[in-house]
Amino acid sequence: MENMISGKTKLLALIGSPVGHSGSPQMYNYSFKHLGIDYVYVAFDVKEDKVKDALDAMRMFDMRGCNVTMPDKIAASKYVDELSPAARIIGAVNTIVNDNGVLKGYITDGEGFVANLKDNDVDIKGKKLTICGGGGAATAIQVQCALDGIREISIFNKKDAFFSRTLETAEKIKKEVPTCIVNVFDIDDESKLKEEIQKSDIFVNATIVGMKPLDDLSVVKDPTVFSKEQVVCDVVYNPEETKLIKDAKACGCKTIGGKGMLLWQGVAAFKLYTGCDMPVEEVKEKFFS
Amino acid sequence: MENMISGKTKLLALIGSPVGHSGSPQMYNYSFKHLGIDYVYVAFDVKEDKVKDALDAMRMFDMRGCNVTMPDKIAASKYVDELSPAARIIGAVNTIVNDNGVLKGYITDGEGFVANLKDNDVDIKGKKLTICGGGGAATAIQVQCALDGIREISIFNKKDAFFSRTLETAEKIKKEVPTCIVNVFDIDDESKLKEEIQKSDIFVNATIVGMKPLDDLSVVKDPTVFSKEQVVCDVVYNPEETKLIKDAKACGCKTIGGKGMLLWQGVAAFKLYTGCDMPVEEVKEKFFS
Repeated sequence: MENMISGKTKLLALIGSPVGHSGSPQMYNYSFKHLGIDYVYVAFDVKEDKVKDALDAMRMFDMRGCNVTMPDKIAASKYVDELSPAARIIGAVNTIVNDNGVLKGYITDGEGFVANLKDNDVDIKGKKLTICGGGGAATAIQVQCALDGIREISIFNKKDAFFSRTLETAEKIKKEVPTCIVNVFDIDDESKLKEEIQKSDIFVNATIVGMKPLDDLSVVKDPTVFSKEQVVCDVVYNPEETKLIKDAKACGCKTIGGKGMLLWQGVAAFKLYTGCDMPVEEVKEKFFS
Repeated sequence: MENMISGKTKLLALIGSPVGHSGSPQMYNYSFKHLGIDYVYVAFDVKEDKVKDALDAMRMFDMRGCNVTMPDKIAASKYVDELSPAARIIGAVNTIVNDNGVLKGYITDGEGFVANLKDNDVDIKGKKLTICGGGGAATAIQVQCALDGIREISIFNKKDAFFSRTLETAEKIKKEVPTCIVNVFDIDDESKLKEEIQKSDIFVNATIVGMKPLDDLSVVKDPTVFSKEQVVCDVVYNPEETKLIKDAKACGCKTIGGKGMLLWQGVAAFKLYTGCDMPVEEVKEKFFS
């Protein structure tokens, strides 16, 4: 009867829409059981206009916290009581911890990216990084890398309606981390992209290019731009090995896929909820291999 | 990995205050696992003034339903969308089922009482019952027995501020089940109590007399009133064998303690939530023996 849910078991949840196919409940519940700690994790389908109600309900039911996924991340950042530095800069949260009715919002996506690189023996301190994308994952990576001591970030994004948001992110980073150099470029400027990649230690794709059904594409059209000293990362994890990753591998680069970021953002959230370390090796084996 | 909580697992809960020591989460979760059905059951401490919010949250999170315990049972009956006949007559619910946002309230306490008797080979149809008490459990038993075809009920209660409620319950029963005879008496009228018990097939204590710390007391001061053809029941389950049950056993009566009612009200609620039969024998062995 050990590890059974009782009247004292604390609830955690994922909120977002859709959530039915998320692997988070399995990953968290396995970890709670493995450590013998008294939590249970479920998923609630919560549309964006219900986020405020969901957070009120979290307080009322004295839930320990929740993970937040699309499309609720920005709305959730508005209704929590406090924000972590990264969540404040980004204006989005993926993790909310409830301490006696006070909700604090965090964004662990960027932490997950940095931890995944560390897990692959890549330290970002003092490095130059070129990254494509200006969405949620891209912004989280840019901000966290700056907070964690990267030297320079070159951001490439489409010159569409969201380009101004990328410029704003760059300004925010410069304000928060004045020592970090941040450049923003048009992703269609291929010669600039080539030039920046060649000057970088790390390249990251944080767009949806390479994800099914765009899986025969890569943001880097000419892979000969890569050299074998470089680290090439993709945020896309479906397929597990994107065209970008395949191309970079062929150039002899160290490559890092998107699955590990997913794992490590969860590890960071797990620590915030429980104070405990997720059993990473077991979770990797059971859910990420 | 079978029976793991996933992103599609449906949540059920107990609401009330306190709930930390409830055995319901264990009983339900064991049953879900045993049957391989995709639900999980937790407990939320919800004070009476938060019941409306709790039901709104149930709808928003698309929870499958909840059990309701003290002090929320009456308030909850006001905020559901529909009521079962027994819940409507009693004005209280212990079970709420959420069908796509429509909440229907039931009270299975009385059903639990009747089912427990049946499980002990006692059929209430056509019988006369004497019962002490006018609280929630007492009222639920009185109403359900009337709905299920008992011939006559004699209710004994304290002539305090709540006596009028007992009179109202009697009137409601007479209106709903005109064939059922219902009498209400003062519990301090010991000779009347003796007289009614002697004319009854079944006697029930539905007061807290006999429960710790009142465990050296019984509502029936002179146990010689019982005869061995009678069935004597107690709603109190802590201690498992109350003074009343001990006394009645000594008189050769068939005796039925309160634990079974607890089990069977849960069995009825389980069926309403899941459409499945709780694995009663296994649950009895694991949690009620």
